[in-house]
Amino acid sequence: MLLSLGLIIGLARLLGELAQRFRQPAVLGELLAGVILGPTVFGTFAPEWQTFLFPRDTHNATVHQGIGTLAIVLFLLVAGLEINLSVVWKQGRSALKVGMLGILIPFTTGFAGAWLTPLLFGREPDADPMIFSLFFATAMAISALPVIAKTLMDLNLYRTDLGMVVVSAAIFDDLIGWTIFSLILGMIGAHGGASNVGMTVALTLLYAGLMLTVGRWLVHRILPLLQAYTHGQGGVLGFTVVLGLFGAAFTEHIGIHAIFGSFIVGVTLGASRHMHERTRTLLEEFVSFIFAPVFFGSIGLRVNFLEHFDGPLVLIVLIVACLGKLLGAVIGARWGGLPIRDRWAIGFAMNARGAMEIILGLLALEAGIITQRLFVALVVMAIVTSAISGPMMRWILQRRQAQRIVSHLSAARFRREMTAGTRRDAIAELVAMAVAQVDLNAEAIEAAAWSREQLLATGIGHGVAIPHARIEGLKEPIVAVGLSDGGIEFDAPDGQPAHIVFLLLTPLKDPAVQLELSANISQIFREPRALERVQRSQSYTEFLAALKMLEPRPQA
Amino acid sequence: MLLSLGLIIGLARLLGELAQRFRQPAVLGELLAGVILGPTVFGTFAPEWQTFLFPRDTHNATVHQGIGTLAIVLFLLVAGLEINLSVVWKQGRSALKVGMLGILIPFTTGFAGAWLTPLLFGREPDADPMIFSLFFATAMAISALPVIAKTLMDLNLYRTDLGMVVVSAAIFDDLIGWTIFSLILGMIGAHGGASNVGMTVALTLLYAGLMLTVGRWLVHRILPLLQAYTHGQGGVLGFTVVLGLFGAAFTEHIGIHAIFGSFIVGVTLGASRHMHERTRTLLEEFVSFIFAPVFFGSIGLRVNFLEHFDGPLVLIVLIVACLGKLLGAVIGARWGGLPIRDRWAIGFAMNARGAMEIILGLLALEAGIITQRLFVALVVMAIVTSAISGPMMRWILQRRQAQRIVSHLSAARFRREMTAGTRRDAIAELVAMAVAQVDLNAEAIEAAAWSREQLLATGIGHGVAIPHARIEGLKEPIVAVGLSDGGIEFDAPDGQPAHIVFLLLTPLKDPAVQLELSANISQIFREPRALERVQRSQSYTEFLAALKMLEPRPQA
Repeated sequence: MLLSLGLIIGLARLLGELAQRFRQPAVLGELLAGVILGPTVFGTFAPEWQTFLFPRDTHNATVHQGIGTLAIVLFLLVAGLEINLSVVWKQGRSALKVGMLGILIPFTTGFAGAWLTPLLFGREPDADPMIFSLFFATAMAISALPVIAKTLMDLNLYRTDLGMVVVSAAIFDDLIGWTIFSLILGMIGAHGGASNVGMTVALTLLYAGLMLTVGRWLVHRILPLLQAYTHGQGGVLGFTVVLGLFGAAFTEHIGIHAIFGSFIVGVTLGASRHMHERTRTLLEEFVSFIFAPVFFGSIGLRVNFLEHFDGPLVLIVLIVACLGKLLGAVIGARWGGLPIRDRWAIGFAMNARGAMEIILGLLALEAGIITQRLFVALVVMAIVTSAISGPMMRWILQRRQAQRIVSHLSAARFRREMTAGTRRDAIAELVAMAVAQVDLNAEAIEAAAWSREQLLATGIGHGVAIPHARIEGLKEPIVAVGLSDGGIEFDAPDGQPAHIVFLLLTPLKDPAVQLELSANISQIFREPRALERVQRSQSYTEFLAALKMLEPRPQA
Repeated sequence: MLLSLGLIIGLARLLGELAQRFRQPAVLGELLAGVILGPTVFGTFAPEWQTFLFPRDTHNATVHQGIGTLAIVLFLLVAGLEINLSVVWKQGRSALKVGMLGILIPFTTGFAGAWLTPLLFGREPDADPMIFSLFFATAMAISALPVIAKTLMDLNLYRTDLGMVVVSAAIFDDLIGWTIFSLILGMIGAHGGASNVGMTVALTLLYAGLMLTVGRWLVHRILPLLQAYTHGQGGVLGFTVVLGLFGAAFTEHIGIHAIFGSFIVGVTLGASRHMHERTRTLLEEFVSFIFAPVFFGSIGLRVNFLEHFDGPLVLIVLIVACLGKLLGAVIGARWGGLPIRDRWAIGFAMNARGAMEIILGLLALEAGIITQRLFVALVVMAIVTSAISGPMMRWILQRRQAQRIVSHLSAARFRREMTAGTRRDAIAELVAMAVAQVDLNAEAIEAAAWSREQLLATGIGHGVAIPHARIEGLKEPIVAVGLSDGGIEFDAPDGQPAHIVFLLLTPLKDPAVQLELSANISQIFREPRALERVQRSQSYTEFLAALKMLEPRPQA
């Protein structure tokens, strides 16, 4: 058991990182890990080994199921925590319009399609047509806040008006979508007819309503008490997880799925400003780095993706999903009075389905609503919509990704101990490194950087200096870095010599790059003891690691 | 399942916090939660409800066992991470002497006792005498680094010579102790006789040796790579857990228990200075706030503590445990040339057994080496030795606990918005609050504080001022706090007016208190944006919560 768990987490993390490196969602890599270790690949080449490592006996399955349930419950708890309800109210009408049409249109198209041409959408002959259509409609209408938030942050759009409209609309869609889905799952359990369903709906709405009003008020008062009178993070962390589990147990008891309970608890807790970023991060990192790989990895173990891959079905699901969501969001944005370019950007942002769609599909698969064929199609749709979301927005808005200094560094343009002892020599030394691998005129660049330096010294304090020059014809920024334990005088406002010198050569046409990179550097070195920690590095890898660890996380 | 999990974590966390409030180890509260929810209390009063909530069918037991195994493996991984091997080498001889005798003497006494008078120590007639005696000896010899480290930090002793000797000796004992125990567990598995046992011993030592040399070297190179080329904490966190699981799987495969594998992996990773505090903390907090409550809570669910409580046995175990460890450590410390008072302090520090002893006992119980009677005795011994360790050290060394400002605050001596607009009035206002509930002369105190203020202004910058006076006859420090959104001029070096004013009245005889408290305050407000976060609080509870969240964690 330990070995199999280790294998899954290990491979899933590895492929997840790889996927992110190619700007793909991490969940793609995690699923792939399961596919490789599962029957699809490993099982085809070495079936005995596969069944030895991942036996399908009841004992192991039970443990896996237990961990799986816990993983989903915690996953939705964290998803709820990330939701900030007050944002929705503040954004007001235009967000609400995008959200409403962004859920109504895909829901209607999805429902109509699944109801009128069930075979086309992969319904099994013996499935309940109503439940199937309702599920399919929900699957089309749901969004994936975590993916959306991450894409917006990458593009520096999170705090803009556009970003807030998208986030609020996605929150709205998620709230409605998960409520509907929980009710569908409840309907499967309660065969007893309308009265039972009505009761469940009433209880569900009552639970959500009470939690978001009375619960929210209570939580807002309990959290400071916990922080004031317990030790460290423990109180709040324990309270969050325990409340999440209770919520999950309660909703399961009233006949809808456990996830809805923990999701609403997450929303309730996330709404309080007393819920600290640090606690949220702690829970989120643990869930996304340990539970998520196990969970998505084991999906691949159970489902044979190759065998159940149905080309036409995948295509249809993909088209219906994109069409419905894009149209809904774009029309909603138009109704909300947003400019044309923004409308389409919003559409592609809302279109990302991410991990949420996969969880939804898995639960439907387990409940027997859909077949493995349709599940595979939903997974592919979720990954494709997430993967195209960022690039499409970039293209539509003509926006660059946020510039980070760490993505412009290279070992060839790094020197652990500079030989230069003066400003002038230091600039010359760094320019020589910078142009070593490209066809540029070193002398001209050096002269440009030096004349800029004479205009106003570039020592920014904290032991850092950032000489720079804007170069004609350059396409991408070039950065060279040198450390100097001895220190070089760069005339900094705090009077300290520079121990780290970044030379920034940026395209003449793009003045913003240089400002963004400088801001990023000074942000990193504003951290207490940043210089000391960077100076401890002995190699380029250690230097890069130190910078990455110091870089502030994008604030959500 | 979700409900029962929620109940256990909730009650365990609650009682754990309560226990800490009364200066008892958290594990006591966690065990108690299990006892209350388990057959001992809940099962006696409402047996039907108890079995309804915590069914003993195979399904639930399997899930619990799976989570339990995972919890222990992660627990030992974290315990290993906390060990800093280089400390042991640096401390050199005296630590080694304490460590060696600190394990040898309790081991010998334990072994002799269990071997010669087995009935007295609760051996069952059909148990293997050799294995039983070896286990009992190990149980007496083991120590509990986490508890010891925490006690030392509480007393501000962690970074002293005395503290380092204790920590190094405890590390030494833990390494030896867990190796021996793993071998014992291996012996139970391998009935095949001496050759098998020899093979297991050889493989165990080979594994530990390789990990701590080659593995350590590798890890030291891999960690910066992960930090430099993966996203955030994810890489290192995943790597740690995966490696821990692999280590656990490997040692289980060669016939000793999984815990030894993950423990050694923890030690290997913890030895690298590239293992960042943040990652370590993340893992540690999650394990100790979520996994530990589940794990220790479920122990109480399984064992009926009342039924298996055997007074004489508890007493004997307690006496043998304390005698062996105290004698061993004290003689070792004498041999190492330490002064008399330090010797006994070291003895009581090393005597704490904590959670480690309980895990050891549980594994022995599961392996059938010991009975529930002896298990209960070991648990009681673990809790008692941990609980007396801190107070005894305090008494022997005549040391106070480290002074923290948060432990001297009270709602009655807090004002959200001061009326005063000047230094003089501010001091008068705070003095009035401070003496409101005690019999002190307000005018004299005010005069003392004001004359001190005139000598040298007490604005320390960052918007904080700390006027103070030392008062004759005062036994405990009195602290009054006022916030002022308008700001009061306190002549701070950075020129900013004070928005928070702490008035410290301290005993005349104890000049150190005032310095410690001032240092603690300025440490808190050195955090970036600390003032802003504190000013956001609307009530005393929120103020206290903000200070607690800002207070830096004691650095291990």
